[in-house]
Amino acid sequence: MTMLNAITISIGDELLSGKTTDSNNAFISQQLGLLGIAVSKKLIIGDINENIKKALNWSLNEADVVTITGGLGPTHDDITKVALCEYFGVGLTTYPDLLEKLKERFAKRGFKFSESNISQAEYPENAELLYNSVGTAQGMHFFHEGTHLFVMPGVPREMKAITTEHIVPILSKLTGAITEHVDIHCTGIPESTLYELTKPILDEYQGLKVAYLPKHFIVAIRASFNSAFGGENQAKLDEIFSRIQSLLPKNVFGKDEDTLASVMGNTLLSKQATVATAESCTGGLIASLITDNSGSSDYFKTGYVTYANETKMSMLNVREETLIEHGAVSEETIAEMLSGTLKNSGSDYAIAVSGVAGPTGGSEEKPVGTVYIGVADNDHQVIRRFQFGTERIMNKALSAHTALNLMRLFIMGELS
Amino acid sequence: MTMLNAITISIGDELLSGKTTDSNNAFISQQLGLLGIAVSKKLIIGDINENIKKALNWSLNEADVVTITGGLGPTHDDITKVALCEYFGVGLTTYPDLLEKLKERFAKRGFKFSESNISQAEYPENAELLYNSVGTAQGMHFFHEGTHLFVMPGVPREMKAITTEHIVPILSKLTGAITEHVDIHCTGIPESTLYELTKPILDEYQGLKVAYLPKHFIVAIRASFNSAFGGENQAKLDEIFSRIQSLLPKNVFGKDEDTLASVMGNTLLSKQATVATAESCTGGLIASLITDNSGSSDYFKTGYVTYANETKMSMLNVREETLIEHGAVSEETIAEMLSGTLKNSGSDYAIAVSGVAGPTGGSEEKPVGTVYIGVADNDHQVIRRFQFGTERIMNKALSAHTALNLMRLFIMGELS
Repeated sequence: MTMLNAITISIGDELLSGKTTDSNNAFISQQLGLLGIAVSKKLIIGDINENIKKALNWSLNEADVVTITGGLGPTHDDITKVALCEYFGVGLTTYPDLLEKLKERFAKRGFKFSESNISQAEYPENAELLYNSVGTAQGMHFFHEGTHLFVMPGVPREMKAITTEHIVPILSKLTGAITEHVDIHCTGIPESTLYELTKPILDEYQGLKVAYLPKHFIVAIRASFNSAFGGENQAKLDEIFSRIQSLLPKNVFGKDEDTLASVMGNTLLSKQATVATAESCTGGLIASLITDNSGSSDYFKTGYVTYANETKMSMLNVREETLIEHGAVSEETIAEMLSGTLKNSGSDYAIAVSGVAGPTGGSEEKPVGTVYIGVADNDHQVIRRFQFGTERIMNKALSAHTALNLMRLFIMGELS
Repeated sequence: MTMLNAITISIGDELLSGKTTDSNNAFISQQLGLLGIAVSKKLIIGDINENIKKALNWSLNEADVVTITGGLGPTHDDITKVALCEYFGVGLTTYPDLLEKLKERFAKRGFKFSESNISQAEYPENAELLYNSVGTAQGMHFFHEGTHLFVMPGVPREMKAITTEHIVPILSKLTGAITEHVDIHCTGIPESTLYELTKPILDEYQGLKVAYLPKHFIVAIRASFNSAFGGENQAKLDEIFSRIQSLLPKNVFGKDEDTLASVMGNTLLSKQATVATAESCTGGLIASLITDNSGSSDYFKTGYVTYANETKMSMLNVREETLIEHGAVSEETIAEMLSGTLKNSGSDYAIAVSGVAGPTGGSEEKPVGTVYIGVADNDHQVIRRFQFGTERIMNKALSAHTALNLMRLFIMGELS
């Protein structure tokens, strides 16, 4: 079986200047990957006609599939269509049906249809249009000297709709191969140790590709097979996951789309139990991560964001003496936050967090990044002190992830 | 003044497969941009020796500055150093000082120093090492036929430290030009209308580069000058911001690093007022966005995450009859959530949100994406119904941003 090879190109000065991060290529790569089409290169270039034409020439010569996103909206930095016409030596033509649809769409929303929008009904003569169900800029398909070229607007929602509705169906006719993978999510273990411990198992599998992807306190082991190299891959990936989970039961918390919050939630569901949160320095982030999961209302009813001392007292019955004597960032305050949360929410489990997120508020004894995290049920509490870094947003994220992991281990009886 | 031209290269199979999005290039582009070095191309390639060498050859011939991130950790997918040695025709050499430092570092953390870590003290003979203050993989600097090549690990924290501590100082000696820009953040207006209304003003400025960057309900107008084209740029950018703000006072909410939450926070600060949040479908996200801002404890004391009906009753005094008669997603429930929030928190302003985030829970009358948002002070309330999309995470984000914007306008007396 021939493996098709793809190049993805993103166009936009804003992607080069660095204030905007390109997320489109990630989605396109995933979709192509599922079809067994490997992206060999990604290129990001600016809104410069000459560079777009050079990129077209290079990519169409080198790849079987080329995708381009960006440069198709109503504003004057949109020049992809012009570059396509010049490259292919064709003109732009107005699609009358499209013009009508655009006018209707504007009218429905109560917006005025303006001159600058007419260009959105004009496309290169040799394009097969891929209709955009969620926006006004259409996608295009070209077949040029054996290469499929797809051009889409850069707005992620529109790119996703065109990819799913048009490009995947077109390409799935060309290829049968599928790359299957599993992401094994681990926490509480450094990448190098994880590598050494898991290598003997992973080396047993012929044709397996492995990558270690660290992010915050989590490392994902991505293990993948391409079906061009043989069958039964999903069964092998399941086996690999089970073996690594048995090897490191405390560290491996899930796979693929699992997050610490979703895994904690499923553990609660299986016990028909509920959790409540009491957050100071994380400011609602833990509750937000929990409620990112559909169905979380079954195990999460109540969150307290007690950002001020008076709120810790009024909502969670933390005593004023405790706050004066030990401070809001202390084991003693966390202990009372946990008790108050359990009592007032009626939940089975409680999470409480208080710390110095920074950049201000640190002291010698409790520098920026000092965070106390507690988990409890009605029988006992576990409270730990952590020292994270100096960046506020990062400290919030690390505190929230650590709290979710402690709660997960606590529910499973693996935290003492 | 000559403008230097840069190419940034990211290495990693995980970046091509699409599950991981590259954020390093954005940071590097920003830093180079501030030095007046324009990134003309970004390339992302896999962990393949041959492709790394091809990319080295292409980029070193074409650019004045080349940066490479990725492929320098302890695991077996790290092959950048080998490719560099082969490309330059040199060998690897062990740096004994580095080996000692690495061993100390491991000992301090209580980790075992293993064979696979020795390679982290080996670097190409012709490299100038750029010491990594936050990790074990060092950066490298090469000067090759007039081009500066910088190689860094892909872990964002480490890449940032090496860029800031070493690369920026080296490059700032080479260049004096600076690109200055302003991002003008607008909300509540479609991109095409914004374009037409602002074009006459922006066209007056010679050498100004303009891009419109939409994200969620916010469009940023990025206006930039390069000092190679003349001086006084910052004054001109300030003037452009003022003129566009005067033109669209309700839509332009801030610039550059401003967010809806930070601008709302500053408005509260200027009035020495406080806000409290009552969140159902946003699940703590609004409180988390508010507390992303340092100093938010001055105006935010209390957040209620009332995910269940019983919590809306117990924490916010919402009446059971209201919930039974109108449902949790209704104007009536929001009205009572607002009153309860003001009364129980003692804050000057309140935000309340209740909706169907999805993907389940929708009905004919209130489909997925239906969200009621209310803002209030002790004198009056404003409650609006919105219809967002079908994706849960997106609905949470849109609801939170819309709520922050309504609160901002309400405080400023511009919402009726």
